[in-house]
Amino acid sequence: MALIVQKYGGTSVGSTDRIKNVAQRVAKWKRAGHDVVVVVSAMSGETNRLIELANAIQTQPDPRELDVVCSTGEQVTIGLLAMALIDIGVPTKSYVGSQIRVLTDDAHTKARILEIDKERILDDLNSGKVIVVAGFQGVDASNNITTLGRGGSDTSGVAIAAALGAEECQIYTDVDGVYTTDPRVVPNARRLTSVTFEEMLEMASLGSKVLQIRSVEFAGKYRVRLRVLSSLTDPNISIEEESQSGTLITFEDDGTMEAALVSGIAFNRDEAKVTVLGVPDTPGVAFKILDPIAKANIEVDVIVQNISTDGKTDFSFTVHRNDLERTLTVLKPVQAVIGARDLVSDDKICKLGLVGVGMRSHGGVASKMFAALSEEGVNIQMISTSEIKITVVIDEKYMELAVRSLHQVFGLEQSQ
Amino acid sequence: MALIVQKYGGTSVGSTDRIKNVAQRVAKWKRAGHDVVVVVSAMSGETNRLIELANAIQTQPDPRELDVVCSTGEQVTIGLLAMALIDIGVPTKSYVGSQIRVLTDDAHTKARILEIDKERILDDLNSGKVIVVAGFQGVDASNNITTLGRGGSDTSGVAIAAALGAEECQIYTDVDGVYTTDPRVVPNARRLTSVTFEEMLEMASLGSKVLQIRSVEFAGKYRVRLRVLSSLTDPNISIEEESQSGTLITFEDDGTMEAALVSGIAFNRDEAKVTVLGVPDTPGVAFKILDPIAKANIEVDVIVQNISTDGKTDFSFTVHRNDLERTLTVLKPVQAVIGARDLVSDDKICKLGLVGVGMRSHGGVASKMFAALSEEGVNIQMISTSEIKITVVIDEKYMELAVRSLHQVFGLEQSQ
Repeated sequence: MALIVQKYGGTSVGSTDRIKNVAQRVAKWKRAGHDVVVVVSAMSGETNRLIELANAIQTQPDPRELDVVCSTGEQVTIGLLAMALIDIGVPTKSYVGSQIRVLTDDAHTKARILEIDKERILDDLNSGKVIVVAGFQGVDASNNITTLGRGGSDTSGVAIAAALGAEECQIYTDVDGVYTTDPRVVPNARRLTSVTFEEMLEMASLGSKVLQIRSVEFAGKYRVRLRVLSSLTDPNISIEEESQSGTLITFEDDGTMEAALVSGIAFNRDEAKVTVLGVPDTPGVAFKILDPIAKANIEVDVIVQNISTDGKTDFSFTVHRNDLERTLTVLKPVQAVIGARDLVSDDKICKLGLVGVGMRSHGGVASKMFAALSEEGVNIQMISTSEIKITVVIDEKYMELAVRSLHQVFGLEQSQ
Repeated sequence: MALIVQKYGGTSVGSTDRIKNVAQRVAKWKRAGHDVVVVVSAMSGETNRLIELANAIQTQPDPRELDVVCSTGEQVTIGLLAMALIDIGVPTKSYVGSQIRVLTDDAHTKARILEIDKERILDDLNSGKVIVVAGFQGVDASNNITTLGRGGSDTSGVAIAAALGAEECQIYTDVDGVYTTDPRVVPNARRLTSVTFEEMLEMASLGSKVLQIRSVEFAGKYRVRLRVLSSLTDPNISIEEESQSGTLITFEDDGTMEAALVSGIAFNRDEAKVTVLGVPDTPGVAFKILDPIAKANIEVDVIVQNISTDGKTDFSFTVHRNDLERTLTVLKPVQAVIGARDLVSDDKICKLGLVGVGMRSHGGVASKMFAALSEEGVNIQMISTSEIKITVVIDEKYMELAVRSLHQVFGLEQSQ
């Protein structure tokens, strides 16, 4: 008997039939003797419908009021799921964020959870009820409705699991776990039975869409055991089988076996590369380049600066492709001020990262990676490394080739 | 400068364009220097959509969870209307029922308002804001979401006006006031510039759908000045003109002019008549007939019992047509127990009521009414009277004829 938090995303609750399906799955865990708290998203499409209504009223919807409107999506789901559970004989109560006081800061549309009042949930669990909580939402200290930003339901699930000291937070989604890389690019990509938090963070930031990155940070910080698993399996498969399915996100020191050298390959082609050429290598120059970009609310990802020759250096970084034009507009005047020779950009790039905690203690991963890319004739435009990740920027046309080749070289395929 | 509460129904906020229209109207009152609190319904169709979702999950949706689902309709509207106001430069804040603590009892789906915390609203009004409140909803003492039942937004508006001591509660709807009778039956029916609470109550219970009856009771109890007016006029008509439009629901002792003999004629054909014939006239017999009906949750409307002859009497009452079959099933065994001769029913009837506070002090209304009906050859099947109302039950085929005739006899037509 354990306390389990289960989180179901928008696709998993996308229709009344799917909601009934979720109820079957939850009931199974409850009947096996577990205490279950369920966190749900809005039915798929609903949040977009609400945002469209808001946009029809105001070009830039007022953030406080947008939260009032958007938080209704999850509220509908909790009521429907609670009904579905009650209908099959499982006593259930639903709660919106304000009722269990999911206290957040007041940053509307992207609030952060500060605290959760667990008393009401614990009382209900003690009286044998299943609790269904609206994800994605909370209230600030003045009781204004806030939302956590898109994908925030994952974070709600983890935060509630942390507050309750749950044994496990199960994130049900429409894929059956975390893979060594995107199976659409590498058909024999392998599902990882476990992956460390650090690896998951590095993979998430590189485009793996399975888990919202803030939820992973949160789980790491509060040491919540997190499992990603599929809501599309038969809801009545055995608890034993389901407990072993998906991918478990572990703390490194849990591991009894040696960590894999490389766990996975993440990649995306959402970014563009900007290089400021011939920058005088003086203190403060990086700040002078990046500060106006940050002030324009443009997020910078990979940043690379090499050593200078003749007192000049080249400064490169990547931004989201949608921000490229604005970035260049912002940098144009800066170029003159700092006396840089030129400003060039390329939006036909791909960012590719090899992730693995094993890299920490094993050398040679980088050279093996570069050798493999070279063998395929793939030129590397930028390199950036961290303790457990090697990121390269290459021409986007080589993306599939590079991913497949590295997947094979590092032995990530499914065992036959 | 006054404090005004305005309530807008589902049709008035039925699209984003209509919501913008409402914002224009509200802004006009605010800019004229008034403090404005707006109470809104769900966009038309939305509550039905939510109920359909619930019904797809559970044949008899759990009442607590149904309230969680249905209360989202108004929440969407408040956010959208607040955005529309902010967009045209009017500082605005929206609140759901729980945020301003619209405290109700715990009768889910038909809760009654007990108390409203006015502090937060007054603070915001003092800082120059328009307040938009979700109608139809509240919270019980344990902070569970409750709803007031259909049409409950009218009651929310009146309750908030009462709590704030508002100068007037303006109920905007898709008709431009209360009429002497249904203009679809009598084309020259006249809009009443004012009507008393008692008259409004009697007219509402007879089928006048303009105002939810509980809101009228509430307004009467807390002495809230209530005006019914149209949301379909140009939102920019002058405050002066709008202040005089619609129908004002007054307290009798406000009146400076003599009350009209008859204010209006209400009618419906939703009911069926049941008569228990040859009932022994002994104490407790009415109870024996009506108690099983009440226990079957069937509402009884007009009840008539005449004096007995030979120790036997006939006992008649009306129920909703949909409940007729059930009523007869429930009464069949009772007939034998009380020794009644027969049980007959008729669902081809119409209930028609003449309403007017003037009746109190003027005799002769009833005889004038009966004479008019007799002249048209309309047979009266049942008669029931109160201080300010005379109700008759007639064959439904005479409904239009009877209404038109009485409308003319009592001089209710529009002045030319």
